[in-house]
Amino acid sequence: MKGKLYLIPTPLGDYPPAEVLPAPVLARIPTLRRFFVEELRTARRFLSAAGLKGRIDTLELYEINEHTDPVQIEAYAKLLGEEDAGLLSEAGLPAVADPGAQLVAIAHKLGVEVVPFVGPSSLMLALMASGLNGQSFAFAGYLPAKTPARREAIAQLERTSARLGQSQIFIETPYRNDSLLTDLAEVLRPTTRLCLAADITCPDAFIRTMTIAEWRTALKKGFTLGKRPCVFILMS
Amino acid sequence: MKGKLYLIPTPLGDYPPAEVLPAPVLARIPTLRRFFVEELRTARRFLSAAGLKGRIDTLELYEINEHTDPVQIEAYAKLLGEEDAGLLSEAGLPAVADPGAQLVAIAHKLGVEVVPFVGPSSLMLALMASGLNGQSFAFAGYLPAKTPARREAIAQLERTSARLGQSQIFIETPYRNDSLLTDLAEVLRPTTRLCLAADITCPDAFIRTMTIAEWRTALKKGFTLGKRPCVFILMS
Repeated sequence: MKGKLYLIPTPLGDYPPAEVLPAPVLARIPTLRRFFVEELRTARRFLSAAGLKGRIDTLELYEINEHTDPVQIEAYAKLLGEEDAGLLSEAGLPAVADPGAQLVAIAHKLGVEVVPFVGPSSLMLALMASGLNGQSFAFAGYLPAKTPARREAIAQLERTSARLGQSQIFIETPYRNDSLLTDLAEVLRPTTRLCLAADITCPDAFIRTMTIAEWRTALKKGFTLGKRPCVFILMS
Repeated sequence: MKGKLYLIPTPLGDYPPAEVLPAPVLARIPTLRRFFVEELRTARRFLSAAGLKGRIDTLELYEINEHTDPVQIEAYAKLLGEEDAGLLSEAGLPAVADPGAQLVAIAHKLGVEVVPFVGPSSLMLALMASGLNGQSFAFAGYLPAKTPARREAIAQLERTSARLGQSQIFIETPYRNDSLLTDLAEVLRPTTRLCLAADITCPDAFIRTMTIAEWRTALKKGFTLGKRPCVFILMS
C-alpha cells in the first residue's frame, strides 16, 4: 500500500488554520487532492484557507458523517491506499467525537498507514485548562436531551467520578447549554467542581472551574453561557 | 490579576518544537521568563530550542512533579498572577497525565486567567489513529505494575469497555511494554481490538490496531515493542 491516510485537524472557530496547526500539517494539506470530510461546505472553506484556494474544484471530496450509510463507508475502502488522502472533521480532531473512526478502522484492516497530525482538541484543551484530574478521565459525548434522563445521567457521572476519581467530560448542542447548566447546578452536590470551557482557542474564550455552590451563586446573579460551543467537565 | 498562566505543550520526541507547535505558541514562549516545569533538565533543553537559547540563566524555573510537596505547590500561588508564566510538562500536554493540574486549580481559585495552547497529545493522537471508538473513551493512566493485579485491571477494562462501549486508553513505563503486551494477549478475548501506538509524531512511529487473535499470532512470530514510549487502547 503506497497511499497513506492523513488525519488532519481543523480550527475550532473562524480564524486562520495557522493559528492552531503546526507547519508540517500546513505543508501536507496542499499536496493532497483526495479528502474524506464530515461536511462539504466547511471542508471547502477550510481547504481554501489552508492553501488550496483556487483548486477546490480539482479535489475529490467524499462525505462521511452521521448520515452516511455504513455500506457507503465500506465502499470508500477502494479509495484508500491508491493514493494519499486526508480525513477532516468539521472542527477539531478527526475520528474523535465524530464518525471518521470507521474509515480509520478500515485503513487498519487494509494495512494502509494512518498518520495523525497535531491540532486542536477542544476536549484536551478544556481538560488541561480545567485544573481537574488529568491522570484519569472519561469522555461521555452528549448526554440525553430530555430532562429526566439527563438528570439521571448527570447523577451517574457524579457517582462514577467519586468512585473512580475520574474527571467526566461531556458536550452539548450549543442551544441547550444553559438548560444543561441549570440541571447540573440543581443535580450535582455543592462541593463537586465543574469546568465550563467555551469558545476554546478563540479570542473570547471563557474557561472557569468553580464548585457547584459557586456556580449556583453565579447563576442567581444572571450568568448564562448562551450558544457558544462549550466543553463541560465535572469532578466529584 | 494581570499575569496569565500559559499551558505550553512540548514535543513527544527529540525533534524541533516547530514540528508540533503552531505559530502562536512559538511566538509566546520567548516572551516569558517564569516557568513551572515537570523536569528542569528537559525544560531547559526545550526552552533553548524554542527561542530562549542564551537566556536560560535569566529564567525563573520552578519544579512541579510527583516528588513536589503539595505545600510547595500551594506556595507557588504567590508567583501566579504577578506576571505571565508558562506551565510545561516533560512531554506533551501539561496538566494531562502529570501533576501540573494542581497549579492550574490554584490559578482558578485565584482568578488567574488560564490559556491552553495547542500541541501534541499522545493520547488523542493514538485515539484518532486507532480507528476505535472516539465518541466514548476513558484514560486510566498506568495499570498496576505487578502481574496478578495487572491482569485483574486488564480484565476490568475489558468488561467496562464492553458494558459502556468505551475505548480504554492506558500507558506503561516503556521497559514494561512487552510484559504488559504479553498479559494483554493472554487475558483479553480473541475478538477484542487492541491499538499499540508507539513513538507517535516521531519518524519511526508505529501505530497498529488488530484483534487479540491477530496480536497473538504476531507475538508468536516474534513481535516486540521494546522500550518505545507507547499508548495502549483496547475496545471490546
